[in-house]
Amino acid sequence: MFGRVYLDHASTSPLRPEARAALVEQLGRGGDPARIHAEGLAARVAVEEARQQVAELIGARPREVVFTGGGTEAIAAACWGAAARGAHQVVPAVEHSAVRLAAERHGEITRVPVDGRGRVAAEDVVAAIRPDTVLVHVQWGNHEVGTVQPVADVVAGCRGRGVLVHVDAAQAVGHVDVDFRALGADLMSVSAHKFGGPTGVGALLVRQGLRLPPLLVGGDQERARRAGLENVAAIAGLGALCGALSGGAVAADGAEQRRLTQRILDGVADGALGLVAYGDPVDRVPHIVCFGVEGVEPQAVLLGLDRAGIAAHSGSACSSEALEPSPVLEAMGVDAHHSLRLSVGWSTTDADIDRVLAALPTVLTDLRALARTQ
Amino acid sequence: MFGRVYLDHASTSPLRPEARAALVEQLGRGGDPARIHAEGLAARVAVEEARQQVAELIGARPREVVFTGGGTEAIAAACWGAAARGAHQVVPAVEHSAVRLAAERHGEITRVPVDGRGRVAAEDVVAAIRPDTVLVHVQWGNHEVGTVQPVADVVAGCRGRGVLVHVDAAQAVGHVDVDFRALGADLMSVSAHKFGGPTGVGALLVRQGLRLPPLLVGGDQERARRAGLENVAAIAGLGALCGALSGGAVAADGAEQRRLTQRILDGVADGALGLVAYGDPVDRVPHIVCFGVEGVEPQAVLLGLDRAGIAAHSGSACSSEALEPSPVLEAMGVDAHHSLRLSVGWSTTDADIDRVLAALPTVLTDLRALARTQ
Repeated sequence: MFGRVYLDHASTSPLRPEARAALVEQLGRGGDPARIHAEGLAARVAVEEARQQVAELIGARPREVVFTGGGTEAIAAACWGAAARGAHQVVPAVEHSAVRLAAERHGEITRVPVDGRGRVAAEDVVAAIRPDTVLVHVQWGNHEVGTVQPVADVVAGCRGRGVLVHVDAAQAVGHVDVDFRALGADLMSVSAHKFGGPTGVGALLVRQGLRLPPLLVGGDQERARRAGLENVAAIAGLGALCGALSGGAVAADGAEQRRLTQRILDGVADGALGLVAYGDPVDRVPHIVCFGVEGVEPQAVLLGLDRAGIAAHSGSACSSEALEPSPVLEAMGVDAHHSLRLSVGWSTTDADIDRVLAALPTVLTDLRALARTQ
Repeated sequence: MFGRVYLDHASTSPLRPEARAALVEQLGRGGDPARIHAEGLAARVAVEEARQQVAELIGARPREVVFTGGGTEAIAAACWGAAARGAHQVVPAVEHSAVRLAAERHGEITRVPVDGRGRVAAEDVVAAIRPDTVLVHVQWGNHEVGTVQPVADVVAGCRGRGVLVHVDAAQAVGHVDVDFRALGADLMSVSAHKFGGPTGVGALLVRQGLRLPPLLVGGDQERARRAGLENVAAIAGLGALCGALSGGAVAADGAEQRRLTQRILDGVADGALGLVAYGDPVDRVPHIVCFGVEGVEPQAVLLGLDRAGIAAHSGSACSSEALEPSPVLEAMGVDAHHSLRLSVGWSTTDADIDRVLAALPTVLTDLRALARTQ
């Protein structure tokens, strides 16, 4: 949209040109990768090439990559697959609702509290393991405040405990360097559209040697780990994006995103706007900052920013519609009703940051003046 | 692919121009429909417009349409949702493996046999209902031989029996007129790419008033019936396609597809090629014909046709890779190891039919000659 400033990349990032080109090119080809005719074989080649590209970006073996219809399905598949082995799952209190709710439906969960910055302690996660625990979840970076979790420590602590570890990397891949094999996790979920890939595609990484029952059955696609025709064009788009991001681009993009979000943090740090930074100001994914907003309703802030041409978000990705308090912020012990999340991405420029830093004082001052007159 | 004849629409149909245009237009827009900023609202409008178009094509209320990541997910969601209410499901023997396997994993199933043409008797389906039956499945049209099932009789027979009826309409929508409300089924699964829509999108129709637990959780999308960011571009593509097909186009397309497949049936009816037509020659979905192929391996036939520029398929959509016998044909009591499925679609021309009728004698004669010399 012309003249708009889009600071809601953590909800969904616009499609990057590399992904778009590959997707559109594949759209005209069609073909079912399970077929032995030329159209099918071409589709299979496209899927396998993309698998190689995804694997290379995130340090996985190609066979460890299972394409899904998105991050939510990848998480559900991890929970479903693991639940066949045991009834108990460990869930840090700030996990995305897709993790929390999928884990809950398969038995009992233990919710592990976090500190005031939204970080879980690895030893608390490990201490929550019971004899019947099958799966331990830990997100790479928080979707609402950006805080990075101690994923490596959780994985290390779980080693030899007879449990699987699932890392929700939806807010990490494409923003920070991710190395699945070096991390040593059993399962990792990836969402393409969170870093400029197509919607309708994601991946579940499944450590080599681990076999779990699939969530979707009825075909041998993805080595019988996810039935249903592959979303070939979207997979090709994701693959091309990962290819473009390999070789250092993620670190460079992440550094730029960190510089841009740091400009926001610095721009409001004097407290004049009544914005309180939430989450860890340093050890965070580079593209997300979140603030408590004193004295004004978050929906009003979002609408005010929107009128000023700026797209932002408040609360977790899935509770804004219902205007419920954010479970993430509640778990952190901060005001869960009045937050503002600004998230940048590949298309964000310094001019965008200038715009939001210029708009925020006006929007907040107007709203607070309005509140005083009521 | 230049000069190719694509007769595998029942596996996946090439993207129709109407769907492609809407999908590509939406690709550049992005936006999360759950957000209240301008980008989000625009995405929501696109999704709701598509919902209206899909509903109109298939005789549903817009609210009855739940967009999914594909037909397989829609079927899994139907099975999962119903399984919360009871343990037993009824499955005609020729249902797609996505139905059969998803039903099996939630408890016990009763498999209902079919006749030699692949048709189940409605009274046999109804007779299989037990006190603990929760869900009765019946496909609209068979994916392998095309035989149309007595869906209306099954729905009528199940009425008042306290069970839900799920109709797998993957091989029906876009090929025959479908009226969900007139049929009176509780659940219906739809796959977009089977009739020229995008891959990675489908729909589960859920009768008004019926509430089932969702398969995917973690967000309030689709009125809390399917979590995960909507695949907005693919949904827009599906909607545009349904819009283009409303107002009589499906019947016209279906009549043309029937004429083309009838040309194939007539062209080999003299028996000279040793092809035996499977399924119901009349009461079938218009785009599928299937043959038993005496004396030659189906993979060899497919490769021979492929070399002649023709894409075809053998066996059910999901067993070709493993070269297993077709469960559909086994249930019909015919040769389940040697079949050839030819399926037409929106892009098929008379020239395509000329090509396959010209190629089949050569391919089959060569293979049989080869077999005799071995």
